[in-house]
Amino acid sequence: METSINKQIQEKTNHIESILASYLPEEKGYQKSVLAAMNYTMNAGGKRIRPMLMEETYLMFGGKDRNLIEPFMAAIEMIHTYSLIHDDLPALDNDDYRRGRKTAHIVYGEALAILAGDGLLNYAFETASKAFRGDSRDITTAKAFQVLASKPGIYGMIGGQTADVVDEDKEISLDELLFIHKNKTSALIECSMMIGAILAGASQEEIHTMEGIAQKIGLAFQIQDDILDITSTQEELGKPVGSDQKNNKNTYVSIKGLTQAMEDVQAYTNSAIEDFDTLPYKNTYLRDLLLYLSGRKN
Amino acid sequence: METSINKQIQEKTNHIESILASYLPEEKGYQKSVLAAMNYTMNAGGKRIRPMLMEETYLMFGGKDRNLIEPFMAAIEMIHTYSLIHDDLPALDNDDYRRGRKTAHIVYGEALAILAGDGLLNYAFETASKAFRGDSRDITTAKAFQVLASKPGIYGMIGGQTADVVDEDKEISLDELLFIHKNKTSALIECSMMIGAILAGASQEEIHTMEGIAQKIGLAFQIQDDILDITSTQEELGKPVGSDQKNNKNTYVSIKGLTQAMEDVQAYTNSAIEDFDTLPYKNTYLRDLLLYLSGRKN
Repeated sequence: METSINKQIQEKTNHIESILASYLPEEKGYQKSVLAAMNYTMNAGGKRIRPMLMEETYLMFGGKDRNLIEPFMAAIEMIHTYSLIHDDLPALDNDDYRRGRKTAHIVYGEALAILAGDGLLNYAFETASKAFRGDSRDITTAKAFQVLASKPGIYGMIGGQTADVVDEDKEISLDELLFIHKNKTSALIECSMMIGAILAGASQEEIHTMEGIAQKIGLAFQIQDDILDITSTQEELGKPVGSDQKNNKNTYVSIKGLTQAMEDVQAYTNSAIEDFDTLPYKNTYLRDLLLYLSGRKN
Repeated sequence: METSINKQIQEKTNHIESILASYLPEEKGYQKSVLAAMNYTMNAGGKRIRPMLMEETYLMFGGKDRNLIEPFMAAIEMIHTYSLIHDDLPALDNDDYRRGRKTAHIVYGEALAILAGDGLLNYAFETASKAFRGDSRDITTAKAFQVLASKPGIYGMIGGQTADVVDEDKEISLDELLFIHKNKTSALIECSMMIGAILAGASQEEIHTMEGIAQKIGLAFQIQDDILDITSTQEELGKPVGSDQKNNKNTYVSIKGLTQAMEDVQAYTNSAIEDFDTLPYKNTYLRDLLLYLSGRKN
């Protein structure tokens, strides 16, 4: 099954890459340097998990309108990408490389990296706003817009990122660690799955169920990340391990212990899948993908 | 008249300040430091010209719904403010002070200033999205949203800002200078006046007329700025003069000469006011404000 899901994900990733490519700006005009910096980072690869979760949720709830879902798929990936560009800046994580590729500020300089991040965040909303049609369907699109504007923001991703940055070298409580994980990681997954459901016309209750599933999968993913930093080898993980301990960083494992952490990953995952199985809709690939994400090796 | 318009502007500014205050986030939670940095810069003063132009345009076209226009007024000021925070960063203009007050990165550090800018840009869309009602009125609100998402972006303000940053030390053409002025300055004025018109139910043609007026007023404002840098004293202007010449910066005056520049300010202003006077609606204060902006002393 592991080979099969990896192969399936690769195919879905390729499919999403081709959608994303059609939403990137052409590199021309007096502002072309910022457009190049945006595209450089958008083209840096990755599994495109967020637009994938959005599309699969949309399909599961019976969504059929490509022109409605695709602008939102591009938008969520732009928001994810802007957050990487700004996170990598010298004043924040100061990373020169990401996935073996030079980061935007190394290639284009800090000024353009800041502007490219701003550009992607703003262009996400501009792109999604192309889904409006000027008729009554806009009432549903507006609901998706509200989610796109709130989950990545100060009460979502930026909120989690702020707490992570500000309290990086402090002892933090489990409550704050969960706040960081929920907002920095789960928020965009919630955003993706909720928008997929909303645009397909799911009920309020179903949207709420998807939000809960996404939050649990995000938490399982992040706790698993803390576990792998201790139990894995650099070879298995494809990045240095032990960095959390070395940085004296409070993680889920340092607070709750390895055994409990592993049990909690399992509990969050099981709970998410149980909720998923209560839905009167099926998407086997999405179910496998959620299981893969919460228990992934890399 | 000059005393009178200054007094009127002050009263309108006070009125807008009270609206803005009600849309700022409460400084609490694990992310409160970013909220404090956002509010610090939002509370740094200024005339609040953009929300003022938006509200006056809305009123002129007969708009009456405070709960519809106010979220957009707050949003445009948040977008303007985020652009100031990021412009002032060391990698961009590297300004320690703005209007005699320390800039955000001086008070809160660079990491939080970057996040506060991101936070304000994102929160602008979150705030405006509160104007959606879940009924057919959302079709109009969606049109306003499209303008809010496009004018400040890569084909608007960020585009102009990019060209300004990238070509700062180069000889630039009049075409590029106009691109910078139109996008860096006019775009948010266009955004404000178009949204005021759209939300009040103006026709496509009227919205287009307001866009043209706003562009001309923005250009007159910016050319006047170039002129004052040469003809004014530091005392009159309240900021250092001659900085453009000192920095060998290409300005409208260096390209077209002082006499032509002054004539062009007049021509853009006259053309804007002529267009304004063709409208079947009246707002004397808005007309005076446009005249004030294009010919202002400071």
